[in-house]
Amino acid sequence: MIKVSIIGSGNVAQHLITAFLKSEAITLVQVFARNSQSVSHLVPENRITSDSSRLKAADVYIIAVSDDAIPEVSKQLNFTNKLVVHTSGSSGMDVLDPKNRKGVFYPLQTFSKDKAVNFTEIPLCLEAESEDDYAFLEIIATALSDKVFRINSAQRQSLHVAAVFSCNFVNYLYQIGDEICHENNIPFEILFPLIRETANKIKDLSPKVAQTGPAIRRDQKTIERHLTFLQDNPERIKLYQLLTESIQKNNV
Amino acid sequence: MIKVSIIGSGNVAQHLITAFLKSEAITLVQVFARNSQSVSHLVPENRITSDSSRLKAADVYIIAVSDDAIPEVSKQLNFTNKLVVHTSGSSGMDVLDPKNRKGVFYPLQTFSKDKAVNFTEIPLCLEAESEDDYAFLEIIATALSDKVFRINSAQRQSLHVAAVFSCNFVNYLYQIGDEICHENNIPFEILFPLIRETANKIKDLSPKVAQTGPAIRRDQKTIERHLTFLQDNPERIKLYQLLTESIQKNNV
Repeated sequence: MIKVSIIGSGNVAQHLITAFLKSEAITLVQVFARNSQSVSHLVPENRITSDSSRLKAADVYIIAVSDDAIPEVSKQLNFTNKLVVHTSGSSGMDVLDPKNRKGVFYPLQTFSKDKAVNFTEIPLCLEAESEDDYAFLEIIATALSDKVFRINSAQRQSLHVAAVFSCNFVNYLYQIGDEICHENNIPFEILFPLIRETANKIKDLSPKVAQTGPAIRRDQKTIERHLTFLQDNPERIKLYQLLTESIQKNNV
Repeated sequence: MIKVSIIGSGNVAQHLITAFLKSEAITLVQVFARNSQSVSHLVPENRITSDSSRLKAADVYIIAVSDDAIPEVSKQLNFTNKLVVHTSGSSGMDVLDPKNRKGVFYPLQTFSKDKAVNFTEIPLCLEAESEDDYAFLEIIATALSDKVFRINSAQRQSLHVAAVFSCNFVNYLYQIGDEICHENNIPFEILFPLIRETANKIKDLSPKVAQTGPAIRRDQKTIERHLTFLQDNPERIKLYQLLTESIQKNNV
């Protein structure tokens, strides 16, 4: 059985703990967390420690802490030449202390504390210094998920930017839709089927091919009507104009 | 049985024809289309005409033609005081000729010609001049869909703008994500679970509450790294900055 230790007690740590405890191929030997309270509902008492001198031997140590804390936490580990990975999308592998073998085990999903996730559908992005360590991480990853990708640090950085556009910024456009509906006494749920269809369509068509709406049709009359409608909200106008221009420029 | 006639042969017309032919509560008496060829695979020959003098009596006439053509088509009808509705999201009810009773029957969805849709899940937005006509449209709408909404012309205009933000612009942000992935040799499908979760989350949480990412966390270090990453693409930088500022301003 492969032995895994998790370092951290936050959102990602908790979801990983739950996933590893379910797995039959992996043993979660220990959780190391300063704040052991926050994982005590998940893991038996004797497998939690907040004392770095009491770390048990494991095949891989997964650091799931905030980006800023990764260098310090990896430095404090009182062993060397073990496989130590972090779970951050926006940090390079090189933030890890060089006294251990480095790797990355990055689950690409938004985790909310109280929302269970189906780990088998979460893309796991792996990186390691050596092929042996990569192969080992791959065994662990495939035990949790059907979607395992080899992604180096530079790619992971670009992936993080792509995710900001396709998810964080998308959610903000939903917020604008929600606000416009609300301001006009329309239930936001009226847009749910369209939002779902828009998100589903790109599995069959590339977004470039799937683009619809007044911008791509160059339907100037409708665009003008929309800008008049938005006239009291300069910020929405700026966004509407910039997105419309970008769509038109990039789809000639 | 309620008798419905459809005027038009485009995308929306075809999807409505298919839906009405399936309904047991409604009879599709006739399709009136200049281009009768494009619906001949859907409707029996004797129920299609391209001659406006041969229009059969119906309880409601649904005009599903391009926005620009609605006024003219509604004027050419050779009868008066019948219920005539259009299916446009961006046109007011007043574009219809006043010689007939006016209404709107607007299905809020993106239709693609070769993709079947489940009409029961499509929001139908209704409007009519009189309560009697509204009630009548409601009977027809509930025969097709579980989601029927009373939406007046001003609301419909705002709904159209909300849909542009939450769907057309969203799809363009998917395109940017796709391009960034492609440029860095990452398969775009790696983002699908995140895109799906982002679209699903807003059913349980308002978008404002669901917002995550560096902008809302005011994680200036990550934002700077992303802007550096984007430095060769001024357009993406402008979008990134404007969306980040808007998120921060609107979530104080």
